[in-house]
Amino acid sequence: MKTRYINVSTKGNIDIIDITSYLEKIVKEEKITDGILFLSVIGSTAALTTMEYEEGLIKDLKEIFEKIIPYQEDYEHNFTWQDYNAHSHLRSSFLKTNFFVSVTDSKLDLGTWQQVVLIDFDIRKRQRKIVVKIFI
Amino acid sequence: MKTRYINVSTKGNIDIIDITSYLEKIVKEEKITDGILFLSVIGSTAALTTMEYEEGLIKDLKEIFEKIIPYQEDYEHNFTWQDYNAHSHLRSSFLKTNFFVSVTDSKLDLGTWQQVVLIDFDIRKRQRKIVVKIFI
Amino acid sequence: MKTRYINVSTKGNIDIIDITSYLEKIVKEEKITDGILFLSVIGSTAALTTMEYEEGLIKDLKEIFEKIIPYQEDYEHNFTWQDYNAHSHLRSSFLKTNFFVSVTDSKLDLGTWQQVVLIDFDIRKRQRKIVVKIFI
Repeated sequence: MKTRYINVSTKGNIDIIDITSYLEKIVKEEKITDGILFLSVIGSTAALTTMEYEEGLIKDLKEIFEKIIPYQEDYEHNFTWQDYNAHSHLRSSFLKTNFFVSVTDSKLDLGTWQQVVLIDFDIRKRQRKIVVKIFI
Repeated sequence: MKTRYINVSTKGNIDIIDITSYLEKIVKEEKITDGILFLSVIGSTAALTTMEYEEGLIKDLKEIFEKIIPYQEDYEHNFTWQDYNAHSHLRSSFLKTNFFVSVTDSKLDLGTWQQVVLIDFDIRKRQRKIVVKIFI
Repeated sequence: MKTRYINVSTKGNIDIIDITSYLEKIVKEEKITDGILFLSVIGSTAALTTMEYEEGLIKDLKEIFEKIIPYQEDYEHNFTWQDYNAHSHLRSSFLKTNFFVSVTDSKLDLGTWQQVVLIDFDIRKRQRKIVVKIFI
């Protein structure tokens, strides 16, 4: 099994970043015709999923997270560390930090309008590391 | 690694389909005694998870999705393509398009009341393709 | 592929249990330097994810689940079996019963403040079994 890393600079506050091209690059460089990429973003305030990456939906996804798991000053976690990112943690636990993408005939098994995204829920800039384990 | 496909006709609007028997068929046909099936439904308006597949819970799951991520005409995505399925996309991003099921002693590692389901959140009929990568 | 099991006694009602030390024990005992642990909790009223495991956030996570998918007597599922755990099922379907954790240089690929947790949403004590498939 081979390991690759994807390093991404994020702005925080539900920063949604399309990482599909990084994955396509790995498929090409590692000459993967058939296999699976197992992705894990390190940390407890980020997540991975897929979406149609277009401006409208990016706004909608941010808004729905604000609505479902809103920022609140009085989450218990905010009294623990005084860093006021409890909502970031909760969103990450809901969406989870891992995802896998399979590869067939040297192409990612995704739809035309489906991109893999890293979402940074933290409230500040971060350098995010995604571990990519490659099974062929 | 072997690849199989599951093709399912869906009706859309939170159509919840039990795909467990398809997986059991693959386990039998591929003579898998020990391994994992990695499932990916192609597209950005569907998802995979598990549930107790009975009529009451099917209704409850549909209703809770309508409540948590409701249909709204004025999502930004609906202005992009005028296809009014922004809520379908958001639900898919939340639940995610992939799932894995391990196999031990030729049986899926699921509970008695636990079935694997494909959920189609789109607003119209679709032909869905699930890629199944088999690791043994 | 090797299979291990983690057996955990839970109290139910969103009992959140840190299972990271069980995973570290498996990594050590199986002498895994590089690989992935694929976890599946058996049943349809539990789930797996990651979080910063501290008292404040444990309370916050419980409360947000109560808010997003509340207990309700009149879920349809409760009329099917009269066991009044429809909300437990719905929460499990949302969060899902599986998770994978990769291993690099004999260490789990997790952040310093990131632990793997089993969440039991059922309304009573349970003995939970987590299947761990090991790929190296």
